[in-house]
Amino acid sequence: MTEPDIFYILGNKVRRDLLSHLTCTECYFSFLSSKVNVSSTAVAKHLKIMEREGILKSYEREGPFIGPARKYYDIAISRTYVTTVTPNLFWYRGLDLGGSLIEKAEIDLSRIPLEHETLISMVASFLELTGELEKILQALQAVESRRDRLMKEIKERYLEEIGDMTQMAILHYLLLNGEATIEDLSDRLNLKEREVIVKAQELDKFIPLRIKDGIVKIDEEKLKQKLGGVEDAGED
Amino acid sequence: MTEPDIFYILGNKVRRDLLSHLTCTECYFSFLSSKVNVSSTAVAKHLKIMEREGILKSYEREGPFIGPARKYYDIAISRTYVTTVTPNLFWYRGLDLGGSLIEKAEIDLSRIPLEHETLISMVASFLELTGELEKILQALQAVESRRDRLMKEIKERYLEEIGDMTQMAILHYLLLNGEATIEDLSDRLNLKEREVIVKAQELDKFIPLRIKDGIVKIDEEKLKQKLGGVEDAGED
Repeated sequence: MTEPDIFYILGNKVRRDLLSHLTCTECYFSFLSSKVNVSSTAVAKHLKIMEREGILKSYEREGPFIGPARKYYDIAISRTYVTTVTPNLFWYRGLDLGGSLIEKAEIDLSRIPLEHETLISMVASFLELTGELEKILQALQAVESRRDRLMKEIKERYLEEIGDMTQMAILHYLLLNGEATIEDLSDRLNLKEREVIVKAQELDKFIPLRIKDGIVKIDEEKLKQKLGGVEDAGED
Repeated sequence: MTEPDIFYILGNKVRRDLLSHLTCTECYFSFLSSKVNVSSTAVAKHLKIMEREGILKSYEREGPFIGPARKYYDIAISRTYVTTVTPNLFWYRGLDLGGSLIEKAEIDLSRIPLEHETLISMVASFLELTGELEKILQALQAVESRRDRLMKEIKERYLEEIGDMTQMAILHYLLLNGEATIEDLSDRLNLKEREVIVKAQELDKFIPLRIKDGIVKIDEEKLKQKLGGVEDAGED
C-alpha cells in the first residue's frame, strides 16, 4: 500500500468505526456487524476493501459452538500518520511503530529567530525548524510505539486476571479518549446506559474510576495512591 | 467540517495534487487544470468538493488580459492532523495552527518503566506516556505554526525581490521535501528537464543549491557561509 491510501480508508465513518472496534479486541464478522449501524453487506464490503489495502488480515477459527468456523479480523499495520494542510504547507508522512527508539528529545524553537532581514536567513530558519520537526516526529514515533506495546499488555493482562471483555473495552476507551460519557460508552458497547454503569462499577474495583454527572474517567489520584501502596508493600 | 472529513479529501490523489499546487502559489482554475493529468471536468468536481467541505475558498479576480474574471482558489484551513492505527490503538486529532505557542518541550520516556508487575502500574505508565504524547503534539503544533508563517514570508519575499514564480516553486518544493530529482520537478512544474535545470541554476544565485546526479537540494553548508557572511558584514 502506498502511504496516502490510508487517507482513503480513514475517509469513511463505517471503516473508522470498524477499526476502532478492532483495536479493542479480536472481532469476528457478525460481532463487528452488530456494532455498526449499516447492513452486513456494507460491513463485508468495507472489510474487504481494508483487507485488499493491507490494513486488515483475516483468519478462520472455530467458534465456541458447533458450526462453521468464524472469520476473524486483525489490524495488520502499526503506524502513525502526520499531515499538515495550510495555505503554504502540504505534506504527509507515515511513521512505522515498533523497533528501537529514542527515549528523550529536547525541542527548542526559542533560538530560531522570529524576524528575518534576508531571504537567506529565512531559508536557514526554515531548515532549522524542519530539523526540530524531525525530532518531534521521532519522539511521536517512540511514544506511540510504547503506548501500542503497553496497550497490548494491558488488554492481555485484563483478560487474564479479570476476564471481562466489556470492562476491558471500557478501560480501553478511557485510556484512548481520556474520558467518556455514559452515552458514548452505551453507543460504543451497544449496551443500555444502566448496564454501562454496572460494568463501570465493576471495572472500578480494579482500576479506580470517577463516575460523576454522567462522565466516566480514570481517577488518577486514587490510581497513584494504589500504585504507591503496592510499591510500599513491595519494599517491606 | 467535522475533523475526519479531511481524510476523505486527502484520500484522492488528484485532490492531493491540487492542494500541493495551491500551497505554492495562488492558482486560478485553468492553471490548476493544466498541472494535473485529469480532465478539467474532474478538476472542477474536486475543487467543488473541497470548497463545499471548507478546505478551499474561491474568489474572482481580473486576469492580466481583457476577458472574464478568473476564479482563484486558496486553502482555507491551517491544521496538522495526527492519527495512529495499530492493532491496539486508533485515534486521530486535528491541531489548529497559529496563535501563541510553546517554544520548548522536553520529552522524557526514560523514567517510564518498560516492564510492569501489576495492571495498576501498566495503566499508570500508559497515562504518563499519554502525557508525553500531549507535549509532543503541542511541540508539533508550535513548529508547524512557525513553518507555516515562515513559508508565507519566504514566498512573499521571493516574489518581491526576485519575482520569478518558477524559481520560487522549486524553492518551495525543496524546503518541503528536502530534495528533488530533476524528473520530480519536471512533473511538478510541467516543464522540460532542461528548463528545470536552467531555473534551478537561476535560483542557485539567490539560494545556494547542490545540483548533482540529477538531484537538486539546498546546499546547507554554503547557506551557512552566506548567512555568516551577511552577519559578519552587519557587525562591521
